[in-house]
Order: sequence, then C-alpha cells, then structure tokens
Amino acid sequence: MSSMAPGRTPTMRDVAAHAAVSPMTVSRTLRGDPRVSPEMRARVLASVEELRYRRNDLARGLRTGRSSGLLGLVVTNLSNPFYSELALGVEGLASANGMRVVIGNTGGDLDRERQLVDDMASRRVDGIIVVPAGNDHTHLDPAGLHGLPVVLATRPPTGLEVDSVVVDDFGGSRRATAALVERGHRRIGFLGLGRSLWTGAERLRGHCAALEESGLPIEDALLRSVPPDAGAAEAVALELLGAADPPTALFAANNRNTVGAYRAIAETGSPAALAGFDDIPLADLFAAPVSVVTYDTGELGRRAAELLLERIADEDSAAHPRLVTIGTTLKDYRPLRPG
Amino acid sequence: MSSMAPGRTPTMRDVAAHAAVSPMTVSRTLRGDPRVSPEMRARVLASVEELRYRRNDLARGLRTGRSSGLLGLVVTNLSNPFYSELALGVEGLASANGMRVVIGNTGGDLDRERQLVDDMASRRVDGIIVVPAGNDHTHLDPAGLHGLPVVLATRPPTGLEVDSVVVDDFGGSRRATAALVERGHRRIGFLGLGRSLWTGAERLRGHCAALEESGLPIEDALLRSVPPDAGAAEAVALELLGAADPPTALFAANNRNTVGAYRAIAETGSPAALAGFDDIPLADLFAAPVSVVTYDTGELGRRAAELLLERIADEDSAAHPRLVTIGTTLKDYRPLRPG
Repeated sequence: MSSMAPGRTPTMRDVAAHAAVSPMTVSRTLRGDPRVSPEMRARVLASVEELRYRRNDLARGLRTGRSSGLLGLVVTNLSNPFYSELALGVEGLASANGMRVVIGNTGGDLDRERQLVDDMASRRVDGIIVVPAGNDHTHLDPAGLHGLPVVLATRPPTGLEVDSVVVDDFGGSRRATAALVERGHRRIGFLGLGRSLWTGAERLRGHCAALEESGLPIEDALLRSVPPDAGAAEAVALELLGAADPPTALFAANNRNTVGAYRAIAETGSPAALAGFDDIPLADLFAAPVSVVTYDTGELGRRAAELLLERIADEDSAAHPRLVTIGTTLKDYRPLRPG
Repeated sequence: MSSMAPGRTPTMRDVAAHAAVSPMTVSRTLRGDPRVSPEMRARVLASVEELRYRRNDLARGLRTGRSSGLLGLVVTNLSNPFYSELALGVEGLASANGMRVVIGNTGGDLDRERQLVDDMASRRVDGIIVVPAGNDHTHLDPAGLHGLPVVLATRPPTGLEVDSVVVDDFGGSRRATAALVERGHRRIGFLGLGRSLWTGAERLRGHCAALEESGLPIEDALLRSVPPDAGAAEAVALELLGAADPPTALFAANNRNTVGAYRAIAETGSPAALAGFDDIPLADLFAAPVSVVTYDTGELGRRAAELLLERIADEDSAAHPRLVTIGTTLKDYRPLRPG
C-alpha cells in the first residue's frame, strides 16, 4: 500500500497503488470487465472506497450513458483484411462496454486523415484510434484536439506522447528469415515496404538481423523496396527470380507483397520457397505452400480500444504513454489434400 | 421542353424536363461530374438559367462547403471483403465530390444498426447508406430522421420509400445453375442463406428457375439453408456429399458458403463441381477450380453514393424512390499453372 500526498484528489493510479494492482485492473474493475476475479474486484473496490476515489465526469458519463458512446477509428486501407479484422477487435471491446465505433478510411492520404480526425473530433466521439498514414503525427496530438484521447495502432507516435499498440515487426521478420535459413536457404530475396515507414524499417531490420546472426552476408541486390501499386510486388519478384544467380527463397514484408511473389513463383514454375509477413485469408486453399508471420489482429484492435477506454476513464492524463507490442507466430500453410 | 405551372419554384426535375435530360444528368452537371459532356453541360446550364433554378440550402452548402461534408455508411459485416469493396466505392464517389465517409458495422445486429444510424443522424452527416441487417426498416425512414436522405444497399426497402441499389441476385443465381446444368449436372446441392432474407430468397428463386427452365425436378433434399456460423457450410456440404446418392455439383449462395463447400470437396476428394455467388479474393491461387457469380461491388457503392448525393442536392424529395440493379457475370477460376 503506497502513501499519497494528503489533500490531493486521488487518481486511478493512486487506487492501483493502494490496492497493489495495475491501473488496468482498476480500470477493468470499474468497467465491470468479466476478466477481473471477484476477489480482485473486492480488493479494488475497497481501495476505491477507502481513498474516496471518484472518477471524472467523462468516466461517470461513460457508465451513466452521458458520454457520446462512440469511438472513432481511422485506418489506411479497409480493403486489406488486416484492417477489417483490427476494426472488429476495436468494435468487440467497444461493444462489450456499451459503445459503438465509426470507422474512417484514409487510403493512405494524409490530408484525408487530417479531415477524418477533425470530422470525428468535432462530432463528439469519446476518443480516436488512428493507424497513421505517414510520419507526420502532429495533427493527432490530443493537445490540439481539446484533450481528446488518441491511441495509435501499428505504429508508435512521432513527436507526441500518446499510447500505441504495434506488432512485433522486428521479431516476426527475424523469425521468418531465420526459419528460411534453417531450411538451408543462403540467398533470400526481400520484398520490402517503403523505407520511410516505421513498419517497413522494422521488418527490414529483423530480416537483416537474422542474416547477421546466421553469419550470412547482407546483399544489397537482394533487398528491394516495393511501391504500393497493384502488380509491383509481382514485377519485383519476377526480376529477382530472373536474375543470373536467383535467390532460392523470397521473404515478403506484407501480405500484398507475398501474394505478388506467390504469383511470380507460380507463373515461372520457380522452386523458390516463400515466406511473408501478415496472414493471408484462405492461404490453406492455395495450390502451393507459403509460410506467414501471423499475429492476432483482433487482439491488436482490442488492446488499442482498451488503452483508449482507460484514457477516457482516467483523469490522470499525465500518465506516461504506453507502448503495447503484439507478438507474432510463424505459420506454415500446406495445400489441403483429400483426407 | 415541358411546360411548368406558373409561379411555382422550379425543381431539379423541372430543369431536367426543360433540358430534355434526366434529373441525374442535371445533378451531375451541377456537381461538376466529368462524365457530363461540355455540350450537355451547356444545355443543362441554359435551362438552369432560363428557369432561374436555384438549388436549396443544403445543395448550395454542398458546393460552398457549408454542408457537413460527411456521409454515413452502415454495413453488416466488414470482415467480408464484399463490404469493404462496397465502402471503397462509396468513398471514391464521395471523395470525388469533396466529401468523406464514416462507416459503422452492425455485425448483423438490428439494435446496433438502430444505434449507429442514430449516432450518425445526430452528428450532422448529410445522408446515410445502409445495408440493412434485417427486414425491419422502419427506423430507416427519413421521415423519422428529420428528413435525412437514406439509401439502402443490397436490399430493397420494406415499408418505406427510399432509393436502393441491389445486385441481380435472381439473374446471377439462375445463370450459375444454368451453367452447371449445361455441363451435364442434373442433381445440384444448394447451400442457401436464411429464408427470410430478401437476398437469400432471390438467390434460391434464381436457382429453382434455372432448374425448371431445364425441365429438372426441384428436390427438397438438395435445398439447404446454412446458418451464418463458422463451419456450418462445410458441415452441410459434407452431409450432402455423404448422402447415398450425392449431388454431382454444389451451388453456394454466398462466398462464405462457397469456401465451406470448397473445403468439404477438398477434404473428401469428391469429384463434385462447385459454383458460388459472390467473388472470392485470390481464388485463382486455389488448388481446384471454382466458378463464381461476380459483380462490381465498387460500382454498387458508387451508385448508392450517387443516389444519395442526388437526394441531398435535390429539394424535390417527393420524387419516386429508385431501384438500381447491378448486373452479374459468371467467372471461372482455374488453378494458376506455370506459364
């Protein structure tokens, strides 16, 4: 049990320290989250009582129906199943807390992102989760949005202090490349993303780390950036496979690149192995094997919503920004055979 | 050139009649749509001038930036690529007209649909496009939404008069089943949707019409309704294929059912042919062939947005509700082979 300066209004963090639990547990308890055990719940509520903790207006509004009941979610590309799964995760948690979600799609356009955030902020949403289109995050600073809570998803914030949830891009890439090396591959073509994107940089870094850790050289000719255009990944993969000394495996840094590489391999009849970051729906129905780095996209959305609800409920907005990382696993798809 | 009662304020329909063009052409001209030829544009603007037609406040707001700039879109299931493509179509047209879109997902829940429509209506959207979750559309009547324009997508309205855009569910199903019959199939298992859904009823009707037109009997045992649960379609397909006298082909009434049927066929090594309603992304990478009824989902979204923008811009709200039908084509996916 920690001490508290006398006279100061207690915060959710004070309650957490008093009950010797995490602020998240306090938040969950006050939201009636079923994951909190009855024993833990009693402990938290005893501390709430003892410290005479009262949640702020917004938080009370949340429970009594005076809040707007609406969260905003801004993503870059709804046609990518990654983002629709993320949206369902956000929605699931919002729904469990009696709230709804409205979703905006930027198509990767920064101006549209600014407008959508402004549209939502000016329409009484309680908070916003944003998958940022670029590296300029200044318009996402709660300070410029009348204190509206903001959480970033898939990328950490640049130049502002807000909570964020990211995928373990580095670790997932390192593991996928290490698996290819273990299978005997020494020259692996890398179909990367834009170099200025955090996600792209982390996935490239993981790939290179695995090569280094295996004592393999990093060949610039095998490291390619693929523009986000239809057909670009296939073209780059065809180039790599058509070289005089082609790589024996390809590692693609996202699902669009993986599908392009898959097409190039299928069309040329290349024996190259294929691995890629991001899961691909129905890949178990494909004619040839592919290994993918998967992660729980719904969980990513749920964690982002959880951080956001905590910020909405917690008046202690000076709490340090949190960075939550979602782990990855490597999954091998093998063609479905009659059983 | 039609006559007009003297003294009455001219409407967009009067302009259309005067210029001998459709109201849609007038609307497009006033929105600056590039599809209107310069000649047609001059003709419409001459009529606008002659009749001293002035668009209403909302319409003027649209052009001068005083409108909210935001359209609402409510869909049933964002994790189905069908709805994300529809959303991109709505967005494309909205964006070309300087507007943004916020999207809500109901998960097929009628209460959530009511709440999301209310959330959007109370937050100054200019109009709403809804894919209704059920057959109760009373809460979608503009009369109960302060006159807010509403357009339904994928289903016609029940008990209210609003514009709608639907897919040719009947014609697409009829064509797919007819193609299976042409390939020699006489007994076709049908994996249908809920019987109370308009879409499900129309697709079943098309299937039965094709059988009748081919002089084939309609066997109740081959007509199945599949609940919208994961794995349900596969289970129903396994039942059909495991019968003493199994069908030689399956026709699935939506993409989820098609994938379930595909799995059942692959697992059992059944020689049954497979066709399904709705396209399936990446089906060309599948190991076995599948035929699908496709349609331009983006166009469905664009047409819905177009109808909505016309209602927003046109004060003549008494105009009859319009029903736009999007055509279908049958597409055969064959496994990709090394070229």
